[in-house]
Amino acid sequence: MERNVLLTIAYDGTEFHGWQRQPGLRTVQGELERVLSTLCDMEITVNGTSRTDAGVHALGQRASFTGDFSIPCDRIVLAGNNLLAGGANSRKAGDVKILSAEEAAPDFHARFSCRGKKYIYKMTTGADVDIFRRNYCWQIKDALDISLMNQAAEHITGTHDFKCFQAAGGEEKETTVRTVHSLEVLQSGNEMELHIEGDGFLYNMVRIITGTLVQVGMGRMDPGYLKVIVDGRDRTLAGPTAPPQGLYLAEVFF
Amino acid sequence: MERNVLLTIAYDGTEFHGWQRQPGLRTVQGELERVLSTLCDMEITVNGTSRTDAGVHALGQRASFTGDFSIPCDRIVLAGNNLLAGGANSRKAGDVKILSAEEAAPDFHARFSCRGKKYIYKMTTGADVDIFRRNYCWQIKDALDISLMNQAAEHITGTHDFKCFQAAGGEEKETTVRTVHSLEVLQSGNEMELHIEGDGFLYNMVRIITGTLVQVGMGRMDPGYLKVIVDGRDRTLAGPTAPPQGLYLAEVFF
Repeated sequence: MERNVLLTIAYDGTEFHGWQRQPGLRTVQGELERVLSTLCDMEITVNGTSRTDAGVHALGQRASFTGDFSIPCDRIVLAGNNLLAGGANSRKAGDVKILSAEEAAPDFHARFSCRGKKYIYKMTTGADVDIFRRNYCWQIKDALDISLMNQAAEHITGTHDFKCFQAAGGEEKETTVRTVHSLEVLQSGNEMELHIEGDGFLYNMVRIITGTLVQVGMGRMDPGYLKVIVDGRDRTLAGPTAPPQGLYLAEVFF
Repeated sequence: MERNVLLTIAYDGTEFHGWQRQPGLRTVQGELERVLSTLCDMEITVNGTSRTDAGVHALGQRASFTGDFSIPCDRIVLAGNNLLAGGANSRKAGDVKILSAEEAAPDFHARFSCRGKKYIYKMTTGADVDIFRRNYCWQIKDALDISLMNQAAEHITGTHDFKCFQAAGGEEKETTVRTVHSLEVLQSGNEMELHIEGDGFLYNMVRIITGTLVQVGMGRMDPGYLKVIVDGRDRTLAGPTAPPQGLYLAEVFF
């Protein structure tokens, strides 16, 4: 009988060439398909909600796969994580983990059934670089004015044509209109996090928004200029793309 | 004129085959010698205080080197870190950092002038494995009783023959008598740190002490049994060696 299984997955993106399967390269999709094909004793293709770039992390990526296999969901988690952690002496061992597996309706698809996502972008400020966090946040030397950043964020929240925040190189989308449900920058000492939730995101959208808000936080751009950027629908008006290692796919909504 | 320069260094040991230079392998000493030889325009040999194992980190390793070179100390830090961070797109870039460089007396030697060291061993407890910290602490599923561990630590503090905590494979030492000035286990929620200071440590001594105290914390070994272990001078009486990724060389005393 054909089954449809939905996984929740966390990964440290440092050692992966991104989500998407690529011949000869270690990717999250590739690792999962290798392990699941063994467990299910058939060739498995995994559909991930978000095709994260190299260096980007996930706290709650989702992925679904179908097939006529017999292994129960709880065994997929246990045996899957054992296989994923194989080669226990490698630094790569255990950098992807299946958090849960559940049966899904026949018409469910992790990508097409997705109604929204939450991303978190982690930053630190200050002159001292922490070498232990170089792959896990964006370390910014300058101080950032969080209240300016949150003023700027108000011009992004809502439904807009976000062409200004779309990088070249992603797949062609029918429309560049998206709804950002919430966007907030939080601070605790030298630690900052940008939290953004929306119905969908264009290619590199969160990283370009972050890079632009950082310009505002440094005082190099007026918060009100965000309205000009959004209305202008022109990528060259926005700030630089923030580096990948600060970005975490936090949650997926169906 | 012959100079003697003392460096303070931090590194993330994950991507290194330990401190000591080895042909064809990436080591901290090898990386530093490569970069310093370029800066000093002569072949530099670096003497590190502690030859840390693969996967072990340093917050304050020290190393000295001599030669007739002209580059000032502040340039060694700036230009050295630039060269060490070279290949900016590699995940390895920036995993070793020179924190300071200073002129030392002619007879100073980072290893032979060392009068003591402090190590920190980081652990977490609880069933949930944090994949982002797999290379930076020992994640222990069981709860640990910190008061039992600190009772056991009292039998280790002081001057003893620590043959029981010496692994095979290190270099031959004249004596296995060492003084542990302080040993303490600290806890904050699920985070634990073992702090140990002493005049010197035998091969794997801190990791074996940690592994043994964890046995005590799990309730598998009585705190008083530590006296039996130390008096017995027998490695097989002590607990297992804790894994390398929790260990940090914190400070060196001259």
